[in-house]
Amino acid sequence: MSATARFITFEGIDGSGKSTQARRLHNYLRQGGSDAILTREPGGSAGAEEIRALVLQGDPARWSAETELLLFTAARRDHLERLILPALDAGQTVICDRFADSTRLYQGLSRGDLRGKVDALHDLMIGVEPDLTLLIDMDPEAALSRAKARQTAEERFEDFGLDLQRKMRAGFLALAEEFPKRIRLIDGNQSEDAVARDVIAAVAQSA
Amino acid sequence: MSATARFITFEGIDGSGKSTQARRLHNYLRQGGSDAILTREPGGSAGAEEIRALVLQGDPARWSAETELLLFTAARRDHLERLILPALDAGQTVICDRFADSTRLYQGLSRGDLRGKVDALHDLMIGVEPDLTLLIDMDPEAALSRAKARQTAEERFEDFGLDLQRKMRAGFLALAEEFPKRIRLIDGNQSEDAVARDVIAAVAQSA
Ligand SMILES: Nc1ncnc2c1ncn2[C@@H]1O[C@H](COP(=O)(O)OP(=O)(O)OP(=O)(O)O)[C@@H](O)[C@H]1O
Ligand SMILES: Nc1ncnc2c1ncn2[C@@H]1O[C@H](COP(=O)(O)OP(=O)(O)OP(=O)(O)O)[C@@H](O)[C@H]1O
Ligand SMILES: [Mg+2]
Ligand SMILES: [Mg+2]
Repeated sequence: MSATARFITFEGIDGSGKSTQARRLHNYLRQGGSDAILTREPGGSAGAEEIRALVLQGDPARWSAETELLLFTAARRDHLERLILPALDAGQTVICDRFADSTRLYQGLSRGDLRGKVDALHDLMIGVEPDLTLLIDMDPEAALSRAKARQTAEERFEDFGLDLQRKMRAGFLALAEEFPKRIRLIDGNQSEDAVARDVIAAVAQSA
Repeated sequence: MSATARFITFEGIDGSGKSTQARRLHNYLRQGGSDAILTREPGGSAGAEEIRALVLQGDPARWSAETELLLFTAARRDHLERLILPALDAGQTVICDRFADSTRLYQGLSRGDLRGKVDALHDLMIGVEPDLTLLIDMDPEAALSRAKARQTAEERFEDFGLDLQRKMRAGFLALAEEFPKRIRLIDGNQSEDAVARDVIAAVAQSA
């Protein structure tokens, strides 16, 4: 596998195994001697975490979809400037648990037809795409029961249930068609070990 | 003076008398029987105040100019949606102490050449201009000593001194040339009462 610095993101519906697989890939690369860092969105830098706390705490209806989109974009900009771009410049591989594709779907689809604004904001203030996005695709029902088994305090995006999971899965598959060079589909219906093997193969193949 | 709902903003360098005159105009309109509200930026709504606190507290260098611009735009969007637009819809006149012109200058000029991004973000996520902007223009040195006499904890934008005040004054005058229909110049070197008379005359004339 190449040691070239790369920006790799994990995407997929809630409970599909993004965080699990991001952690495993990070361990795998480091054990193989690569200089890789693991981060996540929303959050990932001190400023972005403060913005994340502001967005996720309190009444879910306190921010409009547009205001929330601006706050997430501010957090992403901070995360990019403070962590992701400096790490890539220093030759590190950056593994990020969710990135702009999640915003394209969750803000762009789930509340209002904001996709045009999402894209315009991204082009204007972010302008960076991952080298490789691993989209963990799986049965929405199974993913939802995994996610529910592991519930934490900050779960507002998971309160919408199975219908939203189905809509999001379809949305992610549509994104994969929109960005066929960047996004690789991974079958998440398998065991953790089997998914991890597919992830490593996809990373190796795209290097 | 017309009772039609209008969106009136005050702009000008620090210490020029914006808050003083916004308060006086508000009192004047209400005493005359108009339904007017007084608000300010950054802040002005509960969510915007939380964002304002996030931006203004702590180390001034913690946010990049771009991230700060996104946060201010998020605050403005919240302020617009929660307070300004509903008030205008209800027939109230809205008086706002600072608005987008301050962002055009402070973010667009003082740190990096961000004016293009400021304008693009404004068009994309705000899209509203005041009906009338009262630009209080005055000698930067006199304004700075007024502002210093009235110092509070949140004064990071005033720490740059006289050079910045001069640059900002020139910037505001350039904005007045850019938006000649909307922006009215008020001579702020006069007594409070004299400035208030000029403000009322400008509001009456543009009604
Ligand atoms: N292949 C798998 N088979 C069975 N369980 C799994 C598998 N992968 C992950 N899990 C478990 O499912 C739950 C959700 O996994 P994980 O937190 O990695 O998903 P996620 O995509 O990051 O979810 P979220 O979007 O909510 O952050 C966890 O409890 C995890 O241990
Ligand atoms: N015309 C005036 N003559 C003398 N002093 C004034 C005049 N107008 C306002 N002041 C005083 O100058 C100080 C600054 O005024 P004010 O707070 O209204 O300015 P401002 O433009 O809102 O400043 P900032 O940008 O810092 O918020 C206050 O102490 C105020 O009482
Ligand atoms: Mg996760
Ligand atoms: Mg003031």
